Amino acid sequence: MSARQYAESLRSLETPFYFYDMDLLRRTLEVVLRESSRYGFQVHYALKANFDDRIVSEMVQAGLGMDCVSGNEVRKAIESGCPASKVVYAGVGKSDKEIRYALEQGIFAFNVESLHELEVINTLAGEMGRKAPVALRINPNVDPRTHRYIATGQSDSKFGISYTEINQAIASLTTLSEVEIVGLHFHVGSQILDMGVFENLCHRVNDIKAWFEEQGIRLRHINLGGGLGVDYYLPDQHPISDFAAYFETVHRSLKVDPDQTVHFELGRSLVAQCGELITRVLYNKQTATGTQIVVVDGGMNDLIRPALYQAHHKIENLMSSGPVESYMVVGPICESADVFDRDVDLPATHRGDLLSVRTAGAYGMSMASRYNLQNLPGAVYSDRL
Amino acid sequence: MSARQYAESLRSLETPFYFYDMDLLRRTLEVVLRESSRYGFQVHYALKANFDDRIVSEMVQAGLGMDCVSGNEVRKAIESGCPASKVVYAGVGKSDKEIRYALEQGIFAFNVESLHELEVINTLAGEMGRKAPVALRINPNVDPRTHRYIATGQSDSKFGISYTEINQAIASLTTLSEVEIVGLHFHVGSQILDMGVFENLCHRVNDIKAWFEEQGIRLRHINLGGGLGVDYYLPDQHPISDFAAYFETVHRSLKVDPDQTVHFELGRSLVAQCGELITRVLYNKQTATGTQIVVVDGGMNDLIRPALYQAHHKIENLMSSGPVESYMVVGPICESADVFDRDVDLPATHRGDLLSVRTAGAYGMSMASRYNLQNLPGAVYSDRL
Repeated sequence: MSARQYAESLRSLETPFYFYDMDLLRRTLEVVLRESSRYGFQVHYALKANFDDRIVSEMVQAGLGMDCVSGNEVRKAIESGCPASKVVYAGVGKSDKEIRYALEQGIFAFNVESLHELEVINTLAGEMGRKAPVALRINPNVDPRTHRYIATGQSDSKFGISYTEINQAIASLTTLSEVEIVGLHFHVGSQILDMGVFENLCHRVNDIKAWFEEQGIRLRHINLGGGLGVDYYLPDQHPISDFAAYFETVHRSLKVDPDQTVHFELGRSLVAQCGELITRVLYNKQTATGTQIVVVDGGMNDLIRPALYQAHHKIENLMSSGPVESYMVVGPICESADVFDRDVDLPATHRGDLLSVRTAGAYGMSMASRYNLQNLPGAVYSDRL
Repeated sequence: MSARQYAESLRSLETPFYFYDMDLLRRTLEVVLRESSRYGFQVHYALKANFDDRIVSEMVQAGLGMDCVSGNEVRKAIESGCPASKVVYAGVGKSDKEIRYALEQGIFAFNVESLHELEVINTLAGEMGRKAPVALRINPNVDPRTHRYIATGQSDSKFGISYTEINQAIASLTTLSEVEIVGLHFHVGSQILDMGVFENLCHRVNDIKAWFEEQGIRLRHINLGGGLGVDYYLPDQHPISDFAAYFETVHRSLKVDPDQTVHFELGRSLVAQCGELITRVLYNKQTATGTQIVVVDGGMNDLIRPALYQAHHKIENLMSSGPVESYMVVGPICESADVFDRDVDLPATHRGDLLSVRTAGAYGMSMASRYNLQNLPGAVYSDRL
């Protein structure tokens, strides 16, 4: 059920706000758990997608682990009831304070992104008299066949450990006595709908894993990160991503031993479709070239994806059913970038109508700001209406 | 004095934070007031550039008016001690609640961006038994000569009233009895360093103004908006924008009667150079292609301009004076977009060094978010160290 079904209940609420379809969220989690448990896969929720209290609480209740990318996220996961033993802490820029906090809590693993970070974690763990469990994040653009012989086509990403550092990292392990390598971590990208990409990732991981094992390094955990996409164009036709195909692809393509556990870090595919930004039409106007504009009260401060990534979100009018016309939908922020979309087909749209910006549950609220001193958007849940 | 001079005092502070050189801010305001008062010009501070309490307080003490773009900004201006009679309220998406609040306060003028908004303000003012002072924001891409005869080259911007609406707006004025047109408002763009642009704007304004006067509409105020740029490349060479040339250009080019007041809305040029984002180096790493990366603890959540606009900010190392090398400077946020700059020449840069991202006083803190659950950056003022 999208916000459209709740339009009457939403009509009088103060806008803009995020609407969450809690039923869809739960159904999504059921599918994820059913499909991942077929293969004994462990799923972590990528908290950065949405740290709304109720969303996080649903994840904890479903038994998911948490993928955190800051000390505050680790804290949020633990304070929300997630056992520290299910918390993974990733990110290229972990501060000493954040590392110490995560060590104190006894998290499952640090996803380590550089040799330098490995050394710092080793030092801090030593000072605290603890062992730090780490998974090395390998830059997946490293083709391991190339890696061992020739370097070509390497990416210039800030993420992960590059092939130039892997040998060094492994050589360091003998002296870095306070870190324990529990596994490898990969993250191939985001919003991926082509299962072939995950298949290729698995093939690369098989090679990298074999190479590590040749070096005598036991890997208990393989973390494939996330990246599964959602349908921003047809949210009603595809409210739940194809988790069956996703996990089956990995099961078929990844070579794991019986004592190795495979982990996933899913964010967008868990929460994007259950969230919508609900905003009210304030004004109609027309540009000199005849473009019809509707000005709404939500803006790039509430949802920055269109401005930042030129991302497409389907926009619907929850009130009107008149003949369809084409509109540019813009927010109130004093920036040319504050445009949700151009050429949006909507039934005749008027002042007071509620519009829904669909598929906004991921990277919506979590990136909101108070630019123009706007209030942060509120949250409305389908099961509390 | 930039943060470099205060490096020793800043060394032990928790990072990241915005550092504000209050002396530079005051010197900037002195120049602005001296140069604008030569011609009797009224300057408003565009609060959206930075709503830090101490910055706003300096503006109020200097006697500037305030250019606000939301109800919260109007409230902030008034609560900071700015008389309502000096508050201008602009923006394409003013909500009813915001308009009512501004009417109650008795602000100087609404900059009205559409005919529809004019009607809504008229209705709300009528309900409250008040007159609404309004300046019509004219889309400056309208060439008034063309406007009266042929329409060509019109922009598709969401801002301002287009030529297709001006005649309608003027015709409406006889029936919209609760609004009083006090002037015209223009805003030609942002980060403009070529005085010829302002000269052209003035010529257009002269024509538009003459046309309004032909229609029998008295204009007491001409608001030219803002747009004066700053030097993001050489902040030390050009700490204060060329306000003398700016105001002189307008004085020379704009035709005003003795009883007409000219207003400006300046944001970036008042506060950009006095602010720096101070961040600490966490890690050095190297990509497979040999790019040297420094990972710092400030990110796109603190300063989104490089990610959002591919904006350039000069980056300096406040600690090191070693031989210069080239670095990619990245933040801790789990996004490829979280890169401050590539190919930054810095003296050999190490863990613990403080870096300054210069010219960050405008559209830095005001656009900050808690993405990745990062804390909002703090503020440190040169006169309180």
